[in-house]
Amino acid sequence: MFSKVLIANRGEIALRILRACKELGIQTVAVHSTADADAMHVRLADESVCIGPAPAKDSYLNIPSILAACEITGAEAVHPGYGFLSENSRFAQILEEHNIAFIGPSSHHIDIMGDKIEAKRTAKELGIPVVPGSEGGVTDDGEAKRIAQEIGYPVIIKAASGGGGRGMKVAKNEKEISVALSTARTEAKAAFGDDAVYIEKYLGKPRHIEVQVLGDGKGRAVHLGERDCSLQRRHQKVWEEANGPSITPEERESIGMICANAVAKMGYSGAGTVEFLYEDGEFYFIEMNTRLQVEHPVTERITNVDIVYEQIRIAAGMEMTVKQEDVQFWGHAIEVRINAEDPETFAPSPGTISYYHPAGGVGVRVDSGVYQGYKIPPYYDSLIGKLIVHGRTRAECLQRLNRALDEFVVDGVKTTLPLFRKLIKEPDVIAGNYDIHWLEKYLGM
Amino acid sequence: MFSKVLIANRGEIALRILRACKELGIQTVAVHSTADADAMHVRLADESVCIGPAPAKDSYLNIPSILAACEITGAEAVHPGYGFLSENSRFAQILEEHNIAFIGPSSHHIDIMGDKIEAKRTAKELGIPVVPGSEGGVTDDGEAKRIAQEIGYPVIIKAASGGGGRGMKVAKNEKEISVALSTARTEAKAAFGDDAVYIEKYLGKPRHIEVQVLGDGKGRAVHLGERDCSLQRRHQKVWEEANGPSITPEERESIGMICANAVAKMGYSGAGTVEFLYEDGEFYFIEMNTRLQVEHPVTERITNVDIVYEQIRIAAGMEMTVKQEDVQFWGHAIEVRINAEDPETFAPSPGTISYYHPAGGVGVRVDSGVYQGYKIPPYYDSLIGKLIVHGRTRAECLQRLNRALDEFVVDGVKTTLPLFRKLIKEPDVIAGNYDIHWLEKYLGM
Repeated sequence: MFSKVLIANRGEIALRILRACKELGIQTVAVHSTADADAMHVRLADESVCIGPAPAKDSYLNIPSILAACEITGAEAVHPGYGFLSENSRFAQILEEHNIAFIGPSSHHIDIMGDKIEAKRTAKELGIPVVPGSEGGVTDDGEAKRIAQEIGYPVIIKAASGGGGRGMKVAKNEKEISVALSTARTEAKAAFGDDAVYIEKYLGKPRHIEVQVLGDGKGRAVHLGERDCSLQRRHQKVWEEANGPSITPEERESIGMICANAVAKMGYSGAGTVEFLYEDGEFYFIEMNTRLQVEHPVTERITNVDIVYEQIRIAAGMEMTVKQEDVQFWGHAIEVRINAEDPETFAPSPGTISYYHPAGGVGVRVDSGVYQGYKIPPYYDSLIGKLIVHGRTRAECLQRLNRALDEFVVDGVKTTLPLFRKLIKEPDVIAGNYDIHWLEKYLGM
Repeated sequence: MFSKVLIANRGEIALRILRACKELGIQTVAVHSTADADAMHVRLADESVCIGPAPAKDSYLNIPSILAACEITGAEAVHPGYGFLSENSRFAQILEEHNIAFIGPSSHHIDIMGDKIEAKRTAKELGIPVVPGSEGGVTDDGEAKRIAQEIGYPVIIKAASGGGGRGMKVAKNEKEISVALSTARTEAKAAFGDDAVYIEKYLGKPRHIEVQVLGDGKGRAVHLGERDCSLQRRHQKVWEEANGPSITPEERESIGMICANAVAKMGYSGAGTVEFLYEDGEFYFIEMNTRLQVEHPVTERITNVDIVYEQIRIAAGMEMTVKQEDVQFWGHAIEVRINAEDPETFAPSPGTISYYHPAGGVGVRVDSGVYQGYKIPPYYDSLIGKLIVHGRTRAECLQRLNRALDEFVVDGVKTTLPLFRKLIKEPDVIAGNYDIHWLEKYLGM
């Protein structure tokens, strides 16, 4: 096992990783920007290193600074969290070259899954169901029309290097293809420096279902069931559940084993998430995230598996503690993301937290990186905490979430708590009856 | 189901009950003394009624005031929590007479278990193993000596109406009997207004093991396994675990079923705890608590059963949601009691909490009745919160507790947190190797 790990992240996820390290008896090194000197992960770490000024490119994305912090402190491994450098294969590779373990998959697997066309090709080869569409990049109108004809309208054109909704265009019929194609390519070029795009069947009312996997890099892998993360706003998840309200135990077993087998075959190492659109009983691969996800706690709660423990163990070359046959699903868990944002306009609301009192009691987990008196800096994403609630059934879980939301106090800044207090009273939410467009429609977007 | 429940208690347990009611969609009525007007359970209740001045006898023990609060608010049931009126059969009976449900067993069962001699006789009849000793009260030296001879020295003389260590005397040999008997009787008379005492075998190094039961009042009952509460100071538990580190699955099954069967046979209704001393593989009944206990969360965490839900359901005449065959034990849980006390002298430390930041993250539950700025009144017991931690194994649970203790901040008053930060580094605690005297020896008492 490692004796010292550097956490190349900030906020609640830095604290999450720090907690796992402490529990495993591992010394922790926090890195932070000048804006984050008072952050909780810095206060609780054994050591901390300032790695540069506030803009992420000068600190949390600054590979030489992080490398220097490793060398100064003698850290043997780096946990990248999510975002920032977590899916940067160059970072993984540089660490490898410096004999520092990257707590995540190999740079090779990050590369494959980072390229959406390559990822889809790989998934298909490994037996994962994919959305019907072009096998590779599409450049001209004629080809685009031929493919769209084949898979049937509506279709969606997506940037190969994309994400977050940029470089995506829907064409409902042949007339719309040309404009959609050229707009998508222009946006892709502007946003990602790469105008490669591809075409896929457009699903009208899909749910977002993702399967949590763990691979040991030696050909063994397990799945920990799925999460439903359909409640999204601008492709940002705001509410996540495990298990998925629409997924049957048979579907869970089937798609879970497909993913576990694929990951095993790849020789994938660490935690990963295979993301799907799900409609009419069919799963369609969209991408694989080669890192820990924000919503991992819902899976942890119903399986009692600590995913960060497993990541660290795998990176240290140890055996996973989880066997597929021991994985059981106990009850239901929901996570809501508490963002420092106006709950109506979603404008960021940085500033000082004048009063903070998290919910507590039975079935409640709070993962947050803030404390009373903490000043939320304006430079980063607005996630300040996650409320995760468990119940024996989804109904029990919803009742508990309702009362936990009522108790949670964050004063001094605006947060998304009022949004959840409204959402939990919506009949569709109570019934688990929503697709990935539901929330935007609800919000009148 | 009830539509409105009055919570006849204060502090963390009032909040615990309030949370369960909210989750079940039940309106809540808080009662409070003048000293508790700013308490959290009052702030979060749907309605609240001031029932008198600070001393408990004038408010939380004042039956007419509580009854009046029920009538004013139209509460259909009362949850008494623990302490105060929770084991007062007259209170249960008066509520019954006023057609208000008492969330607890019948006054008859409270009476039986409230009289230690009667409790022991009943337990024995129901097949629960008891400590060898006198069948009933002992008044004269000759009888005492004869019984002590029969069961073997050392013996202990205990007040029939007692508790909390008062009216208890050990006699190591025949010479000590007379003094022990008369002292115990005098203390019993002074403390409880009743000089009836009994004699039992004195166990040298017992553990305190207690079995959680639920009975539906109609002849069905389940057990939820045991808790080890051996770490005590002056008969006050400070650290509780489920399952017990020394108990085998076979012992759990065996003693659990003995208790469940006994409770079923009694027609017992509600939650109860059958307490044992445990030494050399033998269980010896000491008493049955006919109420919810402080340490119930450790059982909740490993069984996923919400004990307060079940109490309320049973009192409302509904079916329990738990069947014995569905009860599983998942991992290990430990609770530590955070008291506002000097961690060395145990002198109460009332006052204002100037900073409060509970531990969070995976596997952590916090049940507390305080918040930052709250002024702990000097009139009540010093329990301000409970930290409950879960892990797949006891070792994992200890590691998690260790890091959670490190994060927990309560400033402005002294607390027992530093005691736990020391205890968790003790080899005997790490090994689970302690009896009911261990903590007092450790503390040099």
